[in-house]
Parts: sequence; structure tokens; C-alpha cells
Amino acid sequence: MITKADKQLLVVFGASGDLAKRKLMPSLFELYLRDLLPDDFVILGASRTQYSDEQYRQAQKDFISSHFDGDAPDAQKLDAFLQMAHYVYFDTEDCAQYSVLKDAIAKWRAEKNIPDRVLYYLGTPPVMFAKIPECLKAHGLNKPDSAEGWRRIIVEKPFGHDLQSALDLNAQLRSIFQEKEIYRIDHYLGKETVQNMLVLRFANGIFEPLWNRNYVYAVEISTTEQLGVEKRGGYYEKAGAMRDMVQNHLMQLMSFVAMEAPSTFDPEAIRDETAKVFKTIRHYAGGEIDKHVVRGQYVSGKINDQGVPAYRDEEKVSQDSNTETYVAAKIMIDNWRWGGVPFYLYTGKRMPDRKAEVVIHFKSTPQQLFKSQCTGPSCNKLTIRIQPDEGIALRFGFKEPGAGFDVRQVSMDFRYDSVVAKHLPDAYERLLLDAMKGDGTLFARSDALEASWSFVDPILNHWKEQGETNLQFYAAGSHGPDKAVELMEDIFYPGHSCPYEGGDDIRTNIAPEG
Amino acid sequence: MITKADKQLLVVFGASGDLAKRKLMPSLFELYLRDLLPDDFVILGASRTQYSDEQYRQAQKDFISSHFDGDAPDAQKLDAFLQMAHYVYFDTEDCAQYSVLKDAIAKWRAEKNIPDRVLYYLGTPPVMFAKIPECLKAHGLNKPDSAEGWRRIIVEKPFGHDLQSALDLNAQLRSIFQEKEIYRIDHYLGKETVQNMLVLRFANGIFEPLWNRNYVYAVEISTTEQLGVEKRGGYYEKAGAMRDMVQNHLMQLMSFVAMEAPSTFDPEAIRDETAKVFKTIRHYAGGEIDKHVVRGQYVSGKINDQGVPAYRDEEKVSQDSNTETYVAAKIMIDNWRWGGVPFYLYTGKRMPDRKAEVVIHFKSTPQQLFKSQCTGPSCNKLTIRIQPDEGIALRFGFKEPGAGFDVRQVSMDFRYDSVVAKHLPDAYERLLLDAMKGDGTLFARSDALEASWSFVDPILNHWKEQGETNLQFYAAGSHGPDKAVELMEDIFYPGHSCPYEGGDDIRTNIAPEG
Repeated sequence: MITKADKQLLVVFGASGDLAKRKLMPSLFELYLRDLLPDDFVILGASRTQYSDEQYRQAQKDFISSHFDGDAPDAQKLDAFLQMAHYVYFDTEDCAQYSVLKDAIAKWRAEKNIPDRVLYYLGTPPVMFAKIPECLKAHGLNKPDSAEGWRRIIVEKPFGHDLQSALDLNAQLRSIFQEKEIYRIDHYLGKETVQNMLVLRFANGIFEPLWNRNYVYAVEISTTEQLGVEKRGGYYEKAGAMRDMVQNHLMQLMSFVAMEAPSTFDPEAIRDETAKVFKTIRHYAGGEIDKHVVRGQYVSGKINDQGVPAYRDEEKVSQDSNTETYVAAKIMIDNWRWGGVPFYLYTGKRMPDRKAEVVIHFKSTPQQLFKSQCTGPSCNKLTIRIQPDEGIALRFGFKEPGAGFDVRQVSMDFRYDSVVAKHLPDAYERLLLDAMKGDGTLFARSDALEASWSFVDPILNHWKEQGETNLQFYAAGSHGPDKAVELMEDIFYPGHSCPYEGGDDIRTNIAPEG
Repeated sequence: MITKADKQLLVVFGASGDLAKRKLMPSLFELYLRDLLPDDFVILGASRTQYSDEQYRQAQKDFISSHFDGDAPDAQKLDAFLQMAHYVYFDTEDCAQYSVLKDAIAKWRAEKNIPDRVLYYLGTPPVMFAKIPECLKAHGLNKPDSAEGWRRIIVEKPFGHDLQSALDLNAQLRSIFQEKEIYRIDHYLGKETVQNMLVLRFANGIFEPLWNRNYVYAVEISTTEQLGVEKRGGYYEKAGAMRDMVQNHLMQLMSFVAMEAPSTFDPEAIRDETAKVFKTIRHYAGGEIDKHVVRGQYVSGKINDQGVPAYRDEEKVSQDSNTETYVAAKIMIDNWRWGGVPFYLYTGKRMPDRKAEVVIHFKSTPQQLFKSQCTGPSCNKLTIRIQPDEGIALRFGFKEPGAGFDVRQVSMDFRYDSVVAKHLPDAYERLLLDAMKGDGTLFARSDALEASWSFVDPILNHWKEQGETNLQFYAAGSHGPDKAVELMEDIFYPGHSCPYEGGDDIRTNIAPEG
């Protein structure tokens, strides 16, 4: 079913960097193992570090090996894969030096008989996202040599730091590449369960009729982690949870949950619909921001009974930092489908567990027929778990066995690993292969990005103005700030009459299949 | 939650018979074990067999012991339970002799200080269903002695042999007891999953919006067995599958699936709604019958690789019998909710497996977005399994992991035994306790019964006229007659594009909970 990509050449900027080593190369190797890489493929690493091809390969090899935890990859296959990797070094900040790259591309295309197709991957710090395309343009490397050829560019996150920088970066990129040639990566969209949102909604006749304000009470989209900022304090101080998680991952995810059915299943039709979602988000200003958006920062506490320090005591974090490590936002999508239905997006570090999920909370029955039945919102909920234990579950009331009609909440569920014996591809693998094939469905488009930034920007500005005044502190290991709990009270904490004894909605006790 | 019944006396007619021994007494014992029997309870067996109390108890004891397969019941508890059982014998066909019963009732009521409440259980052959009430009336045993007291009567199946006999029996019974005092038993309605149909539909906000002609393509209600007629040839020759399964069990089940939401959850409100379903069934006459209803009879074949004889070669079966051992009917419920949606009811003996279930086949998506998606009806289906492995499952399309958007059908499911550690009560237990408590929800009401007979009657008459001409023969171990397959082709056999590799919708590989 899945076919390999057409012959092409891949140029990796930031080739000696962390992202390329940790994410890109292991994913390329996985694609190699599954025979999905193009024939005569060349991976051309580019960076300023002075490596020979062999040194470059060795550096990648160590990382790839560690990527397969426990299960060492086939050494012979890994070596065969690494033979595809070549390397050029030059100062990537100096446009003049890109002739080195131009020559290498020409050389490898000729040597491997690769048609006029080059994919650039920007695995560099964001400061280079504008510079590299500019230098590519200076050498004519941004355009194909022929009408049949193509050039594409994959841009890593973060894409912009605020609305203005996103606008600037888009303007810069679009002056050099066409929109359809730009692949802004959001690895959340590469996750199986995220894509499955589209299938679930549009390949089934039973969910869509319920998927609107008539039946949905609220939508919860969340990702929480137990970890703190670890070694990334320097990066995180400048980012914060809103930029790190909400503006990109959670809002992209929301667009898949909220979008209308596309007219056809092609990238532009789908992105037209997701972009519409971003454009109909209600913007907040002034006092509305504090009412609907909560930011928090963790103080010391306990995770798994282990004491952990406050954010302000983490490495490379300022003692008076106001950077948010937690965000909860009530987002309203003002259209016919969703009018009045809150989308609660929240994310936090140092939370009690690590989890990413979308939960559709359905409205209650119009009438309470059974004395003991669950009432109020979210008696019925559809949980789409993104991690861990990818799967989906539907919570509903069923009859307690025995006399009478006592109702009890239970879950029916489906876990990916219950039927998927084979390799569940990593998000990166999926996205890389899509970009190689020219499928932009799972990449952010400029108008959507700009619309999401224009929602986020006033909030970030407001927070900056407020300093510490509206920053909510929460203990590490807690469920986040009290104000966030208040904001999402009706769905987040089971304060209503909805007893559920089934434990996790997604069962974990399924015997492996034979 | 579940409370015991009020003090009362139970009179068991046909006490020495099979039904009382096999079904009634083991269920009463279960209720006893769960402390749900009334205080100072007396079970007064009545039959013409000359037993002492001790002989009666011994006969029951052996049956009850064998009821607990493998797991012998607590001997002390069983003895304590049997102490509640007493016995009177007299010719139950002779009204004059009922004075024996009258005296015994008076004696035990006085001795145990039981208020004015007597429940009669007719576990006799149907020929006695009219006689016994008549004799009870002759002795004033059909009415309570006081305004606070009550008399109730449980009538076993079959209730009538055709429309006229059902009308006659109802008329007879209702001249002696009030409708609300008559409990016509249909053990199918005592099954947990059948009752759960009400909870599933009316305690959840998510199913009801889909539960109508806009989203449902067809409803399948079936019960199949591997067994033939076994030793019951004599009974079966006169009954046939239509009377044995369709007219009662399957049609009752259908009424729960198809009913409107009751205004309140009380027995009359619910039975008002189920009766309405029976009254809106489209009746067939003449040629329509053969078009929409198929009858079959098994010939020899193989079950589990064992050769089995033809129905006509079974014990006590006539060599030219035209009795049907298989029925499939396409039933139309002509109301606003169900207009145009076929309800396929089928049942058969000597089928490949033993199974009873309700399946809601949903319509397809209005548009096919994904190339590989399931199209046509029943890509989405909700299966409510009544036996074995009680549970529910929802089949839907999900994304095949990996590149692209390949859709695959999978199931999410819930099995009763995954959360119900405790005893799942037998249907009889439930129904007995309901009758003791005066709850008629799960018993057939006369108007519903008459309406179901008036649908069935013309079909039975037509078959009688046709003799063998429209009788379809099918091999034991096959899926039934070809004509039945034709009738239900679109939902029954996956001839359409709906690949599903998940095996049974209800998983059986769930590890037991701790």
C-alpha cells in the first residue's frame, strides 16, 4: 500500500546538530528499513563542523543505535544506510560559501542520476530559518532547473516567536519558495492518533452527526508531562508553555478536531478547512485574557514521591522568571458548528502524569429516566489518546447487573497495539516521507500559522505587561493552578454525579495477540 | 441497592415438572443466596404427583445441585433454602380439589405470619394456563382478602399458539386477574444485555441521536444455535421456530430496540412504548409473505465436523414434517423513527454457532473521502451481544498506521465480565424478583402480545396452506437457506467493501482483573 518516494536528494542543514541526530536520521533509517526511501538516495549533510563523510556517518551511527532502546539495529543494514550519507562543511551564515553546497548537489545528482528534485531540511536553530533560504536563493538553489523538477524546504519549529516574527519569516520564505514548497513541521501532526482524527471523523458515519454544538458540551485537548525543563532551561526561558506547546501542537490538534469535512482529501482542501478554524477563534483582549486563559509556573513539589525543585531553581532559569510552565485556555470557535462549545486546551510540566489526549465531552441526556444515572456534562465522553497507549475509548452508562436499573459508567475501548503487530511509525518518519512525496496535509500553512499567532500574541503581550501579577504558582506534582481548575471545573474534575470505577478509559490489560 | 421482596407466599404449579425444577428452583436458590427472598418465605409446590415435603425437597435438591456445574452449592445453605419448600398434591384439573390448596395457603400464611400476598407461578404445560386460573377463581383465590393485599400470576411460555388462542387466553386470564396482576414470562427480557438496551439508549446522550432512519441502515436481531431439536421433537413439531423464538423473544427484543423513549421509567410507560412498536409493524399478506419471510428446515449435515441427522429424522418428528427450524423475516416498522429501515429477525437450529445478538448497521458516510475506506452499509455497526460473552462492540474505520490514509475496520468493545466480578444473575432470577416486587416492565402485556400474534398469524396460516412448497431446506451447519441469505444479503454477508480482520467484534482475550 505504502510506496517509496520518487528519486530525490535531501540536504540536511544543521547536520551535526542535535535535532538531525536525534530525530531526522533515526527516522530516515526506519524508512530505509521499510524500503520507503527513494532509490539511489543521497543524504547530504551540511554544517560548519569539519567532518569527513566517515566522521559524519560515525556520529550518526552512535545516535541511531541508541535510538533503538534495547533492540540493537542490524549492523549491516545500518552501515548500508549510512553509505547514503555524505557531508559538506562551510559557514552556513555566509551566503558566498554556498557554492560548496551547489557543487556538492550537482556532483551527487550527476553521480546517482538523481532527477531535478531537492528537499532541504532546516534542522538549525530558528535564527537561521531566514538566512539559509536567502543564501539558497543567492545561488539559485531555491528553484528547480526544469519545469518537471522541484525544490522543497522543511522548516523545523519554532516557527516564529510571536505574530510579527511569524509574519516576517513567512514573508521571507514566501519570497524565496512557493507556499506549497514550504513544509513547516509540527511533529504532533505526524502522530498516528492525530491523523486518525481525520479518519475517525470522516470515514465513519456515526461520529460526525454528534460532532457539533447540539451534542458536544466541551472539548478537552491536553498534554501534560511529569518532567520539568531538565537541561532546556535556556530555551524554555524564552519560549514558555504557550509557544512551546499551545500555539503549535495543541492548536493544530484543535483544528483537526474542529474542522469541517474537506471537499476532497487533498492537502489544500484539508488545510483550507483547518485554516478556517484558526480564523474563527474568538480573540481575547484586556480583562478577557485573565478570565479565559490561565498561566502557571511550578514551585517545588513531589513527583512519584521524589522531591523536585521549583522552576525558578532549575538550571539556566532566572530566579525571578515569569515564564509559564503551564497554560490553560478556554477557546471559543465562533462558527455554526461550535458556537457556545468551549475548547479547553491545557498543558503543563511537572504534572502528576504524562499524557496527551483529546476528549470530547458530550452533553447529558435531555431527561433523567434512571434514578442512578450519570447526569451533567461528560457522562459520555470519547477519549482519543495520543500518548501513552495510543487508542480510543468511549465512556457510557450501562446497567449494573442484577435487579433494578442501576446505571454505571464504563468504557469500551480500542488500543492500537491490540491489532497493530507491525511497527507504529514515529511522527517524524511519517512527516519526512510526506514531504518527500509532496504531501503537505500534515504541515502548517502560513495563513493558519498567522491566525494562530494572532490569537496568541495579545495574550503573550498581556502577560509580559503583567509581570508576576497574574502568574499562578502550582506545586510540582499537582494538577496545576487552582484558577485553571476553576476555569475547566465542569469537565476537568468530576465534581458532578458521574461515578466511574473502571480506572483508565484505555485498558492496559489486554493479552497480546498470538 | 437491590432490596429483598416483601413478605409473600409463592405457589408453584407444575412443581414436579421440568420447568420448575430446571429454572424456577435454582433461580429461587440463587435469590436466597443473595438474601433477596422475602422473610419467612414459603414456596408451596402444587402438582398431582404424590410427594411428601421431604420427597419434593429431595427431587429439587438433585436438580439444583446439577445446576451449579462443577461448583457444588453449599450443602447447609441448600438445606436451609429447601426448608422453605412445602408441597400439596391434588388433581389440578379438578377445580373441586383446589380446597386443598386453599387450606395450605391459609395454613402457611398463618404459620409464617405472611400478609395477604400470594404469587402464583404456572410452570405447567400451556393446556393448564386457562384451567388453573378458573379453579383459583372458583375458590376465591384470585383476589386478595383485603385492599392492601395482592394476588399475582406468572404465566410461562408459550402464551398462545396463534392469534385466536392468545386472544382467548388473554380474555380468560383477564376475566380472573387484572392485567397488572398477570406476568407473562419471556426469559429473554430477563437477560442483562436486553435490559441494558434501555440503559444504553436512554441513559446516554450519544446513541439516541443516531438511533433512527437518518443514520441506521438496518437492524439485525438474531439468535442461532448449533443444537437440533434434541429430545424436544414432540414439542417442536407443534411449535416451530416462529412460535418458539420469533413471535416472543425476537419480537420482544425488537420492541426494546425500536421503542420511543418512555415518558417515565415505570412499567406501564415502558410497555406503552413497546406495545406501540408492535402495533406499527407492517403486516404481510399473500405473496408479500414469501417475499419478506423465509422459513427453513435443516437436512443432515455437519456441526463441528460431526455428522448430524436431518430434522425429519429426529426423534418424535414426522418423516414429512414441514415444521420450520429456521426463520428469517424482514420486518418494517412504519413510524417516523424507523420508516424504511428493515429489521431483520432470524433464528435457526443447527447453525454454525450459538449466538444471540442485536446489531445496529449504520449508514455509510455521505461521501467517500478516503480511497480505501469501507463503503456501503454496515461499515459502522454497534453489536449488542446477548450470548455468549455478553458485551457490546462498536465497529468503525481507523487509520492503518503508516504513511497515507488507509482505512481499516476495527472494533472497540466492552465485555460484561471485564468489570463485573460478581454474579451475573440468571434471567429467571431477575424476572422472579421483579414479579415478587410487582414490577411488570420486563413482562409482555396483552396488547403487545396480541399485536405480535396478529403479525405472525397470517404467516403461519400461509405456511400451513403451502405445505412443503415454500419450505427451504438447508444443510445442518450451514448459514441457513439461500433465500434467507438473499433476503438479508446487504447486511448479513459481507459482500460489500468492508474488510475486517479483527475476528469477533467482542474480544475474548481480556486478562481477568485482579
